[in-house]
Amino acid sequence: MEPAHHVVIIGGGFGGLYAANRLKRAGARVTLVDRRNFHLFQPLLYQVATGGLSPANIASPLRALVRRQRHANVVMGEVVDFDLEHRRLILREELETPLHYDSLIVATGSEFNYFGHDKWKAVAPGLKSLEDAIMIRRRVLSAFERAEVEFDSKRQSAQMTFVVVGGGPTGVELSGAIAELSRYTLRHEFRNINPADARIMLFEAGPTVLSMFPEDLRKKAQEQLEHMGVMVRTGIRVTDIRADGVTIQVGDQEENIPSDTVLWTAGVKASSLGTALAKAAGQEVDRAGRVTVEPDCTLPGHPEIFVIGDLANYSHQGGKPLPALAPVAMQQGRYVADTIMGRLRGDSPSKPFHYHDKGTLATIGRSAAVADIGWIKLSGFMAWLTWLFVHIMYLVQFQNRILVLIHWSFNYFTRGRAARLITTPPESPPHEP
Amino acid sequence: MEPAHHVVIIGGGFGGLYAANRLKRAGARVTLVDRRNFHLFQPLLYQVATGGLSPANIASPLRALVRRQRHANVVMGEVVDFDLEHRRLILREELETPLHYDSLIVATGSEFNYFGHDKWKAVAPGLKSLEDAIMIRRRVLSAFERAEVEFDSKRQSAQMTFVVVGGGPTGVELSGAIAELSRYTLRHEFRNINPADARIMLFEAGPTVLSMFPEDLRKKAQEQLEHMGVMVRTGIRVTDIRADGVTIQVGDQEENIPSDTVLWTAGVKASSLGTALAKAAGQEVDRAGRVTVEPDCTLPGHPEIFVIGDLANYSHQGGKPLPALAPVAMQQGRYVADTIMGRLRGDSPSKPFHYHDKGTLATIGRSAAVADIGWIKLSGFMAWLTWLFVHIMYLVQFQNRILVLIHWSFNYFTRGRAARLITTPPESPPHEP
Repeated sequence: MEPAHHVVIIGGGFGGLYAANRLKRAGARVTLVDRRNFHLFQPLLYQVATGGLSPANIASPLRALVRRQRHANVVMGEVVDFDLEHRRLILREELETPLHYDSLIVATGSEFNYFGHDKWKAVAPGLKSLEDAIMIRRRVLSAFERAEVEFDSKRQSAQMTFVVVGGGPTGVELSGAIAELSRYTLRHEFRNINPADARIMLFEAGPTVLSMFPEDLRKKAQEQLEHMGVMVRTGIRVTDIRADGVTIQVGDQEENIPSDTVLWTAGVKASSLGTALAKAAGQEVDRAGRVTVEPDCTLPGHPEIFVIGDLANYSHQGGKPLPALAPVAMQQGRYVADTIMGRLRGDSPSKPFHYHDKGTLATIGRSAAVADIGWIKLSGFMAWLTWLFVHIMYLVQFQNRILVLIHWSFNYFTRGRAARLITTPPESPPHEP
Repeated sequence: MEPAHHVVIIGGGFGGLYAANRLKRAGARVTLVDRRNFHLFQPLLYQVATGGLSPANIASPLRALVRRQRHANVVMGEVVDFDLEHRRLILREELETPLHYDSLIVATGSEFNYFGHDKWKAVAPGLKSLEDAIMIRRRVLSAFERAEVEFDSKRQSAQMTFVVVGGGPTGVELSGAIAELSRYTLRHEFRNINPADARIMLFEAGPTVLSMFPEDLRKKAQEQLEHMGVMVRTGIRVTDIRADGVTIQVGDQEENIPSDTVLWTAGVKASSLGTALAKAAGQEVDRAGRVTVEPDCTLPGHPEIFVIGDLANYSHQGGKPLPALAPVAMQQGRYVADTIMGRLRGDSPSKPFHYHDKGTLATIGRSAAVADIGWIKLSGFMAWLTWLFVHIMYLVQFQNRILVLIHWSFNYFTRGRAARLITTPPESPPHEP
C-alpha cells in the first residue's frame, strides 16, 4: 500500500536530491519534479566547459538515483506556479493527475544575474547548465580554430583574448582551466598561432579574488593564477559587453578590450520560482530574489512548505544569509527530510537548522588550489589533493567516481583534454511533439 | 625546412585519417581539412544515441591525432568547390592563404538519403553525426518521460512506439539498443508506465535484414532481435512519415502506425562534395552520388587527385562497387598514401588497389551479434565478443579504449546506461563571430 503522506520536491540539485534520498524510510510518498532528467554535479561544470570531462561524467539520471526507493517517483516537468490553498502545483505540462502535496520542498537553486544588462547574456554566457558548458567549450575551442586561419592580426588578437568577468570560484576555475588549455593541452597542435600567446584576463569588481577566503589564501590564489598565465585585474567595473569585446572602467578612464570570448561569472540570483512562491504566500523576496525562511527552513505562515539551498535566505545563523554553496543545500535537504519524518512520527518540533561549515575549497588548476578548513589553511598541491578527494567523494554515482578518476589521471599525466569537441546545435531542430 | 610536396586531405573520417597517419614519414607537407575538429568513430554512434557511451568516448580531436607529425596541419573549414586547373580548394571560410595542393585526397564520406522525401528528414532523423546521436537520445528518452505523465491512452501508445526504418547494421543496432533500454535499463524507473511495454518496430523494404550476410546469419540476427522484443517486418515499403507516425504499404494495403519516434537508417548517398568534384572534372557521379575512380583510386584524367571511402565508386574488383564500410576506407587511405610516397620516391606506378575483406560484423545487443569471417560464421555470444574486441581495437586513442571498456563493463553488469541525458539545444544560440 502506498503511504498517505505525499512529499513533493521541486528541483533535483544538491538540496532536492539529498532530501529525496534521506526520505527513503520516511513512510511517505516522494515525488521529485525537475525540468531536466538528471542531477548535475555543478562544481565540476567548468571541466566540461574546458574539455576535461564529458557531460555524462558529472550528470546522473534522477530516475536511476531514486529507483531503489519504492515510494519515490520522478516527474520531468516545470513548475510555474503554486496553489497554496489547495496544496497543488501548477506545471507547464499537462499532467495525468494534478500534483498535490502534503509537504513541499522547494529547491530550484539560482541562475546568473546580469544586473539588468540582459543583452549581455547573449554575448557573455554564464556557466550553470550542461548546455552552457558545451556552448562555452565550443566558443573557446572555435576561437583558437578561427585564429589559426585568420589573416587580420587585429582580429586574431581578439580571437586569442579570453575575458572572464567575476573573481569568485567559478571565474577562478574557468580562467585557470583556459590558461592550462592554451599553455599545455593545445601546445604543438597549431601551425600559424602559438596557443600559449592567448591572453586570459580575469576581471573582478571587488578588491580581491575569492573574497570568501582569508587574506593569505586569496593572495596565494592570485599568485597561482598569475603564475599560470592569467592576468588578474581587481577593482575593475565592466561597463559594457559586446560581441567584439568589453569596456571596463579603471578609475576615471574607460578602456576597450577587444575579445571574441567573454564569459560571465559575476553574480547569481535565485531562480524565478522563488518570486512566484513568495507572491503566492503574500510575501516578498530579498534583493537577490531569495525567499526568507524561518529557523526551521519553512516559509513563514506555511509550516508545510520548506525552501532550501540557493533559493532560501536563511539568516538565523550569524545574521547574514548563509552562502550559496552545495554543502548548505545538502545539509538543509537532510534537515528538512528529518523534520518531515519527525512530524510523521509525532515528535516535538525540531531544533533550528544549523549549518556546519566544514571548510571552503577552490581549485585554480593542475596541482594548484586553496583550502580553508577550520584552523588548517592549505594552498598548492596539498589543497589540490584535498579538492580532488572531496569532489570524487561527493559525485553521486560509483561509476562516475571511477570514470572521473580515470579521466583526471589521463589529464594529469598527458595534459590532455580528450573531451575537447566542438559540437554545434543541429541546424534545424526537428519536430518534437 | 618544410617539404615541398603538399598533400591536402579533405575529411577526417576513416579514409582521411588513415591516409594522414600513413603519410608520417612521407617527406611531404600534409594538411587535413574537416568541418569538425574531431575524428568520429561512427560504428559506435548508436551507443551514444541510446545513452550507453558519451560523445567524447567515440570522438578524438584531429589535432591531437596528428600532433606528433611535424609537417602535418589541421584546418577546420568546409571545402565547397575545386579549382582543378590551379590545384586550389575553395573553402566557405576566408583563409589566410589559399589552399593549394600537389596531391589531393577527397574522403568526405556519405550522408543519409531520403530518396527525394526531404520533409521526412525533419521528422525521422538519421544517425550520422554526434548531433544526430544526441538528438535521437533526447527524442527516445523524452518519449518515455512524456508517456509517464500522459493521460490520453492513444497518445501514450504513440509515445511508446519506436519505429526504425531500414534493416541494415545501423537499423539493427539501433532497434536492439532501444529494446534493451526499454526492457532492462529503464525497468523499475517509472510508476505510471512499464517501459517494457514499448513497441520497437524495424521495417525493411527488402526480403531480409542484414542483406550482406549469408542466409543462416540473417535468420539468426532476426531471431535474436525478436527474442529481445523487436518486431521485425520485412518487405515493407514506407510511403509516408509524419510527426505523428508512419504509413507503410503491406501488399495492396496501407497501414498507419502512430509513433512519436521514427528513425531513418534506410539509405545513404555520397557527400555532395563528390558532385562538385565530378563537375569540376567534367564528369558525372553515379546514382548514389559517388565519384567513379580508376584502379589506383584516382579521378580519371587527374592522377594527382584520389577519391576514397564512401565517396568513391570503386568497381575494379568483382564488378560491383565496393561496400560503404570502414575497412574499405581505411585500406584505401593507406593505399593512396603509399602511392603518393612511391611517386615521391620515383617508384614505378603502383598495383591497383585490392580490398582485403576480413569479414563482416553486426551487433544486435548484449551478448548478441553475428559475424561472417571467411569460413567462420558466428552468432550469439562468441560473435558479440569478437565484435567487442574488434571495436575496442580500432578506437583511435588509448584513453578511449580504456574508457569504453569500463563503460561497457558497467553497462554489461548493471544493465545501466549512465549517459542517458536529455540535453537540449540552447534556446537562443549566442552570437558567434
